[in-house]
Amino acid sequence: MTALVGSHFLLLSGGLDSATVGSWIRERHPGGPVTAVTFLYGQKHAVESEAAAAVAAHYGFAHRLVELPAIRGSALTDCDRPLPESRDLATVTGVAPSYVPARNLLFIAVLASLADSAGPATLWIGVHHDDHTGYPDCRPEFVVAADAAVRLGTQFGLRLEAPFVQWPKADIIRWGLAHGVPFGLTHSCYQGLRPACGVCDTCQTRLAAFAQVGVADPIPYREHLG
Amino acid sequence: MTALVGSHFLLLSGGLDSATVGSWIRERHPGGPVTAVTFLYGQKHAVESEAAAAVAAHYGFAHRLVELPAIRGSALTDCDRPLPESRDLATVTGVAPSYVPARNLLFIAVLASLADSAGPATLWIGVHHDDHTGYPDCRPEFVVAADAAVRLGTQFGLRLEAPFVQWPKADIIRWGLAHGVPFGLTHSCYQGLRPACGVCDTCQTRLAAFAQVGVADPIPYREHLG
Repeated sequence: MTALVGSHFLLLSGGLDSATVGSWIRERHPGGPVTAVTFLYGQKHAVESEAAAAVAAHYGFAHRLVELPAIRGSALTDCDRPLPESRDLATVTGVAPSYVPARNLLFIAVLASLADSAGPATLWIGVHHDDHTGYPDCRPEFVVAADAAVRLGTQFGLRLEAPFVQWPKADIIRWGLAHGVPFGLTHSCYQGLRPACGVCDTCQTRLAAFAQVGVADPIPYREHLG
Repeated sequence: MTALVGSHFLLLSGGLDSATVGSWIRERHPGGPVTAVTFLYGQKHAVESEAAAAVAAHYGFAHRLVELPAIRGSALTDCDRPLPESRDLATVTGVAPSYVPARNLLFIAVLASLADSAGPATLWIGVHHDDHTGYPDCRPEFVVAADAAVRLGTQFGLRLEAPFVQWPKADIIRWGLAHGVPFGLTHSCYQGLRPACGVCDTCQTRLAAFAQVGVADPIPYREHLG
């Protein structure tokens, strides 16, 4: 509907998907000002904020770190919930143990609040196809609804874009390799380890996607995961 | 769609509208556990959180105070933006000077995050008809979109209810008077004054609505505003 005008606010986690959205924005809106926003919400792998800062610096984006009250109810935040070591999705509601309650809606709302105080803007989020099963707030229908809420609930009629919402992670990596995404600066490990643990859910997913593409993941892992 | 089950989370500002939603919930869901949530977001009238605590205690609701990073870009939060002393809506985007960028979406998202970590729940917000013009995040179409975002983006498919979204403030007062809402405990003044200033936008709106109903506002004002 509305043309993509104004400034850009990118939800930058430090992982590879949102880093690739950075290149996507730069390619389509070369002159637009971009603010990358990274959240601290009590996650165990807060080291990802350092990766996000490095990625933002690579692109020349402004970078803001926003600290929120800790979100409870997730293996990513609660000490009494172990981190998943596989793609085990068998919880009572069918969501992944690493699902963080309403996290993306909360992040989008903060981005909207920051952007709407300044002028027209597009908000960007790196959700993708492989997370549709375990994470309700990564699904296309959520993105459509959140876009409507952001557009209707702000003075500047902000928009939400999720360019990879229908892409498998391997396709994101392929596109990123062809467009200079600094995958070596990104960080995914839920345990917050450097070198990455290689066994947590997100390490396994990342390694599998690189293997599918037939390219070595440029970040170091604790063990050789040939 | 989904029946209203589980617990209830009420966005309780300390003003009269959300206090009236408290009675609404108690009447319709007499046994349901209710958590009232009040936000500190850099507002000048933070005294309203004391009123919210008193209202929550009156109903026997659990009460949580959530501190968020300050939201900029509003006369309610920025020291260089004067508080409105009338219903002056003439800003560049047509919104009220007291519009706080994406505030309701942010509050709803936090409520969703709190609720979705525990189980099925309904989120309640006291937006009403008289704020449709100046506040995009008080309009029915925003409520519909936010409800969809909350339902689709959470593991428990939460719902958002805004029972007064089509009601003028005077009707809320009439209903509240008939249902024992403790209006004397509520606080509205943007200046955060007790007794209330009587001249800011929200004092004037409140006084006008009570006058329309033909009942005296039970809270004290600085000057006699006969």
